[in-house]
Amino acid sequence: MSTKSFAVAPQIEAASLLVSDLPLSQLRLMDDARFPWLLLVPRRPGLEEWSDLSPEDALQLSREIHTATRLLIRYAAPHKVNVASLGNLVRQMHVHVVGRNTSDAAWPGPVWGFGTSAPYSEGARQGISLRLKELLESMEPIADF
Amino acid sequence: MSTKSFAVAPQIEAASLLVSDLPLSQLRLMDDARFPWLLLVPRRPGLEEWSDLSPEDALQLSREIHTATRLLIRYAAPHKVNVASLGNLVRQMHVHVVGRNTSDAAWPGPVWGFGTSAPYSEGARQGISLRLKELLESMEPIADF
Repeated sequence: MSTKSFAVAPQIEAASLLVSDLPLSQLRLMDDARFPWLLLVPRRPGLEEWSDLSPEDALQLSREIHTATRLLIRYAAPHKVNVASLGNLVRQMHVHVVGRNTSDAAWPGPVWGFGTSAPYSEGARQGISLRLKELLESMEPIADF
Repeated sequence: MSTKSFAVAPQIEAASLLVSDLPLSQLRLMDDARFPWLLLVPRRPGLEEWSDLSPEDALQLSREIHTATRLLIRYAAPHKVNVASLGNLVRQMHVHVVGRNTSDAAWPGPVWGFGTSAPYSEGARQGISLRLKELLESMEPIADF
């Protein structure tokens, strides 16, 4: 077992905001007003690949992706949700859950590497985070399965 | 319950080759020699989003992503594995498991929408499919967790 402690990579910390601690992962809001965009960052040191997850954590991550997808649909009613764990630039495992619309600037291409992020205003950032927390609390618990 | 039967979308069928039937998903090889690239297509009609998965299927899909990631690492030893369920062009749920290298043409950007696919020769396609099946059979069963 690793004795390293968990810390969010500085690039993720700088580009996103903690919304809630789910049982396994930090649920974060990407600070990019172009797309409704959540991140899940499992609180385990040294994780890079899906296959690095313990069996229990792999199942829990799937539950949390399920939850984040439902949350994003309630929050933004997107045309499609994109789920991805890439890690080409930041190796620490993190899962993107991104709402896509046919009218968004990157459609139908992927959002990663597309253009320049557009940070929210401080008020919008806090308002969205609060709204996401409220929606999350109103949802069925993710431990239902 | 839907009474529709499962069929792979024609675009996926045309761009990839069935390697093996896992308990939930078809494991397919993308016919693109630029990247070692697997697909998982859950055999459920009408699936589009992660949140459309039943609880049991969501857990099984995570097991199968775990397996496909390990398989790809054994087959191609990539620098990083990209896992993604997008569906912007083909809405039927399918999960990409793509091996990435710092020397590949799209690095560090995403592979989706990048350039033009480079189909394998018939011999290479069959050889890779056989090799993947052999590696899969040599791996621990995915029902271990």
